[in-house]
Amino acid sequence: MLPLRGAMRDTRAMSTPVHPLDAATQLEPLGSGQYHGHTSPNYANMVGPFGGVIAATLLNATLLHSGRQGDPIALTVNYAGPLADGEFAVEASPVRTNRSTQHWQLVMKQDEQVAATASAVYASRRATWSALETRFPDVPAAQKLQAEPNVERAPWTRSYEMRFVEGALRLSSAERQAGDSRSTLWIRDAPPRPLDFVSLVAICDAFFPRLFVRRPVWAPVGTVSFTTYFHADAPLLAAVGEAPVLGTARAQQFRNGYFDQAAEVWSEGGALLATSHQIVYYRQ
Amino acid sequence: MLPLRGAMRDTRAMSTPVHPLDAATQLEPLGSGQYHGHTSPNYANMVGPFGGVIAATLLNATLLHSGRQGDPIALTVNYAGPLADGEFAVEASPVRTNRSTQHWQLVMKQDEQVAATASAVYASRRATWSALETRFPDVPAAQKLQAEPNVERAPWTRSYEMRFVEGALRLSSAERQAGDSRSTLWIRDAPPRPLDFVSLVAICDAFFPRLFVRRPVWAPVGTVSFTTYFHADAPLLAAVGEAPVLGTARAQQFRNGYFDQAAEVWSEGGALLATSHQIVYYRQ
Repeated sequence: MLPLRGAMRDTRAMSTPVHPLDAATQLEPLGSGQYHGHTSPNYANMVGPFGGVIAATLLNATLLHSGRQGDPIALTVNYAGPLADGEFAVEASPVRTNRSTQHWQLVMKQDEQVAATASAVYASRRATWSALETRFPDVPAAQKLQAEPNVERAPWTRSYEMRFVEGALRLSSAERQAGDSRSTLWIRDAPPRPLDFVSLVAICDAFFPRLFVRRPVWAPVGTVSFTTYFHADAPLLAAVGEAPVLGTARAQQFRNGYFDQAAEVWSEGGALLATSHQIVYYRQ
Repeated sequence: MLPLRGAMRDTRAMSTPVHPLDAATQLEPLGSGQYHGHTSPNYANMVGPFGGVIAATLLNATLLHSGRQGDPIALTVNYAGPLADGEFAVEASPVRTNRSTQHWQLVMKQDEQVAATASAVYASRRATWSALETRFPDVPAAQKLQAEPNVERAPWTRSYEMRFVEGALRLSSAERQAGDSRSTLWIRDAPPRPLDFVSLVAICDAFFPRLFVRRPVWAPVGTVSFTTYFHADAPLLAAVGEAPVLGTARAQQFRNGYFDQAAEVWSEGGALLATSHQIVYYRQ
């Protein structure tokens, strides 16, 4: 007899094929907020998995939890150490549930070592006075731009279709510098997949390290802390469907081994879906 | 015989007076990363303490810890529930220590209820290629601007000297709207206190909720998640001393009960000391 996990996977595969992102972020619930997961070659980075898929997997642990209330509002992931390709454990604990908000703490472990920690805030939202203050960038439509070739060093880029408006990755050995670190691009999952919180948070980390745009020479880099604020609720994400979203990212400062980057992700229709921030280690 | 805690306080008071911020963020170490603290009326908000002083107290728990390595790079605080005026407990756990980074998880409790959770990343920094990308705002010198009167509803504002360039709090009952939510101001502790990580993180939360600038009608608001990235190391903060710093904050979107705000804090000399982000609940 097949073990339960294998059996569940097979049944699902027979009806609709599992999207590679769903396979990569799939978690087997072991009860009491404990999960078992496995990295995927489709989202591999140079060392271990793409950070965005680690964040998406951690978020998924809260989404799958029977006790969760509402939609995610905020997620912070701290990348504590390298995650090797292979199996890992996730623990998700709802540490406080209020009337309209719920607070989570998460840990991802591999061989009993902490690989990542995270916190998430969920909320039940309702319609209020609303206003968009930042502006949708002035960009050509996605279909007017060429899809960017994948980056050999970063296999996870095969899992995205990226069409750059500005700031594509152009690494070289020359000591030239760009005027700024901004990238603006249309991006969606490859193959296409309806947008949800899991894919949105991975996209929020799909901007290359800003260092490589500003100073396009290869260097060791690694995100240490990553935060995403979800402005969209589930119906707004569902309305995006498989359409590409517009992302823009820039650094504010590179200083003594760390730089920050700030990103916005927009729907084609001009809705600001998420704002995201990270601080990244670099060596030069 | 006086209990040890009282005795330590008395000795300290006899030599140099304790700054109100140090009194408010003071923690009594109980061993194994456990601390005991007490709220301060100098940093009271409408309900419980000013969120910035909660963040500063949590950061202080890592700064006081005998096992800490390096300087803070990132701090995220999730405000899980109201903290009543009075005593509280803090637990700080170094969950992973690498060669150049250290990851922390923190919990603040009151009556066994989680009031806040936090994560911090510390790092040992060294000089690298560096570049500032965002620009110091075009502002008049601090001494050319009037100090803003305190806000009656928010007693903690007495503990800051704020000189607004734009976007001061002007609440009214009229249904008018400002063009944007930006505030730019010179700010320092009152009484003056040399800048360090503790005071810097509190200042990062000293920008009023952007909702009140954009739509200046009183409403219930509360930060749910707050992240600060420290671009400055200890020597750069020490060089600022008691001089005011320049802060600027704006929202990107107000939508269905939540808005974000992004802030920068600069030295008079034009060094970007910290960038900070938060997502805030509002009811309308």
